[in-house]
Amino acid sequence: MRTQVGIIGAGPAGLLLSHLLHLRGIDSVVLERRSREHVERRVRAGVLEQGTVETLVAAGVGERLRREGLVHRGIELRYGGAGHRVPFERLVPGRTVTVYGQQEVVKDLVAARLAAGGDVRFEVDDVTVHDADTDRPHLSFGGERLDCDVIAGCDGFHGVSRSSIPEGVLTVHERDYPFAWLGVLARVRPSAEELIYARTERGFALHSMRSPEVSRFYLQVPAGEDIVDWPDERIWAELRTRLETVPGFTLATGEILEKGVTPMRGFVAEPMRHGRLFLAGDAAHIVPPTGAKGLNLAVADVRVLTEALTHWYATGSTGLLDDYSDTCLRRVWRAQHFSWWMTTLLHTFDSDDAYARRLQVSHLDYVTSSEAAATTLAENYVGLPYERDLADPIPEAPRARKANE
Amino acid sequence: MRTQVGIIGAGPAGLLLSHLLHLRGIDSVVLERRSREHVERRVRAGVLEQGTVETLVAAGVGERLRREGLVHRGIELRYGGAGHRVPFERLVPGRTVTVYGQQEVVKDLVAARLAAGGDVRFEVDDVTVHDADTDRPHLSFGGERLDCDVIAGCDGFHGVSRSSIPEGVLTVHERDYPFAWLGVLARVRPSAEELIYARTERGFALHSMRSPEVSRFYLQVPAGEDIVDWPDERIWAELRTRLETVPGFTLATGEILEKGVTPMRGFVAEPMRHGRLFLAGDAAHIVPPTGAKGLNLAVADVRVLTEALTHWYATGSTGLLDDYSDTCLRRVWRAQHFSWWMTTLLHTFDSDDAYARRLQVSHLDYVTSSEAAATTLAENYVGLPYERDLADPIPEAPRARKANE
Repeated sequence: MRTQVGIIGAGPAGLLLSHLLHLRGIDSVVLERRSREHVERRVRAGVLEQGTVETLVAAGVGERLRREGLVHRGIELRYGGAGHRVPFERLVPGRTVTVYGQQEVVKDLVAARLAAGGDVRFEVDDVTVHDADTDRPHLSFGGERLDCDVIAGCDGFHGVSRSSIPEGVLTVHERDYPFAWLGVLARVRPSAEELIYARTERGFALHSMRSPEVSRFYLQVPAGEDIVDWPDERIWAELRTRLETVPGFTLATGEILEKGVTPMRGFVAEPMRHGRLFLAGDAAHIVPPTGAKGLNLAVADVRVLTEALTHWYATGSTGLLDDYSDTCLRRVWRAQHFSWWMTTLLHTFDSDDAYARRLQVSHLDYVTSSEAAATTLAENYVGLPYERDLADPIPEAPRARKANE
Repeated sequence: MRTQVGIIGAGPAGLLLSHLLHLRGIDSVVLERRSREHVERRVRAGVLEQGTVETLVAAGVGERLRREGLVHRGIELRYGGAGHRVPFERLVPGRTVTVYGQQEVVKDLVAARLAAGGDVRFEVDDVTVHDADTDRPHLSFGGERLDCDVIAGCDGFHGVSRSSIPEGVLTVHERDYPFAWLGVLARVRPSAEELIYARTERGFALHSMRSPEVSRFYLQVPAGEDIVDWPDERIWAELRTRLETVPGFTLATGEILEKGVTPMRGFVAEPMRHGRLFLAGDAAHIVPPTGAKGLNLAVADVRVLTEALTHWYATGSTGLLDDYSDTCLRRVWRAQHFSWWMTTLLHTFDSDDAYARRLQVSHLDYVTSSEAAATTLAENYVGLPYERDLADPIPEAPRARKANE
């Protein structure tokens, strides 16, 4: 069996890549270890940058997203007994984020691939990468062989793509945090119109939502916390303590549908390529979820890879493919920094002394009172323009000397 | 002997306070341990915020400052083989900093105090604070006694004012950095029009100046470094290595007039008051010099204290005096954060792994390419408006829910 691009993983990255390539007339086959039902139900990210939404809409998979997604024009930072809104409409006019679960994106992409006759194979065993560093890479799976021009590794942090690359090829950069997020999905109307990022002395909490009927919450907990130590009543009590800190705010509670503990980690493997194997999304990099960047980075990678492959097939030039890793890594490191920044702004660290805690509150006071500082949060949160992936920094040469006044 | 305000220390804080009080018709006596010659020659800070310049001009001590000070409308961040200018004229229109040595400010203030008949006593021994927590505070020195209504402790980090406050009254917050600054004053024309903040893998370097004939340089060195290990040739070689990193830039060298090693530290003592003793400037707080905030914070403290004392003498109300510490500390903590931010943006830390170094470069890339991020640097560097000391943060209430698009 043969295709142009062999794609490992039917998450948002693999599916979107397959679909975008299809729109450019490039064939692909997607191989996924789990069942269709599993990937369509897996609860993950839920905040889509403006550019992600535009990409999905332009690819023809944005109809339900437009209809059901909740457009947000701000977030709230809550600390010290008050809420402070970061108003996107004033800080980054015309730019928004859309709350729409990752599993909904996956459903829309699977449906679009299948409707277009795309080849997406679920429950495929033993996917293995072969000869990635030659001109004839191929994949094997369940006794079959898939020859292809290039392989796209879109199978996430624990997938086979990155681990198929020989020792010594990749440089890995990592940052572990001494805490985790306890995530909760609950059948209850959101208690506020927008996301609330709350910093308290007991730790961080996030009020979010998936729909007008389903809320999503997160609690900072120690790393390695066991979910069995968090019965539903304890979760609600802790959420109330951390979120009911401003006058008039009451947390609506309801049935908890799902709960789990996610570690917080920054991770980058460089370069995002080995020969004809290109890594995209979580296969190459992980960010802590605080800035809601993981899914959006995967979409940005896939855009760059689509352009590069299209250019290669059209011209034979490998220029954009050769630039793929560097181009993506600029945005990846920006997101690493932003996610670290949001995380340290809002979480409590056991290692923090009183000086560090005062610095954190002063930083929050600044972000919520300076237009420029609030704009740095807003522009990263809604997503920096894709043009920036290739743009040079702007201010350069020193000016001529100023005369004294 | 009796006065209204007994001031300890004839640095910029104590002298400016004495002069501003004089302009409001309030008497003071300034007691200084060192000689006039010593304080007028002590090389310290040299970058004055816009507000500091306006304060000195409004107080009638800005004539030479206006004439000889070098007005700067930007700084350069240099790293990765390129220079990136932070252009104040675009980011914070109409706001500048002025390069003018602290010892020049001191000379101007001493001259103004003496011309106005002010009582400034140099080489005064054994200044001691008495009964600060009563209605009858007084100072003793060299066998004399000075009764006063209030005492202003403007005698710097190592002065007697703060250490006279009983154990347990103040809470101290501290942050030590694992490096120091080796400072150099050299008789050589500046090699560039503006300050250059350079980040290299070997550490930070700063190109600054005091006049068109005198340059000021700093090198990041390990904490506790001994200046005897830095002969002039080694200093110039290291400055060249760290600064000559962009095409066409050559460092002009000359006679080194003065050199020394300064520790880098963040320090805040709270509250900035004990009874009738008010601390101002370095007596209460220290910042690492990276953001050039130390002298400017002292001026801001003195402004607040002048207003509070004027109000108290005019009305008998202690309201502003009671607010003095909280009012000052908002700006102090903002400066602590900004100084920490500039320091970590530009220095190398031995504890940094490759992830941290990449994060730092990504952060620099962001500051030099985002208008909003560059503005956060610029607005702090030229100095946030004094109104902000009292202002509430701006964005507050969450908005009404948005309909889906």
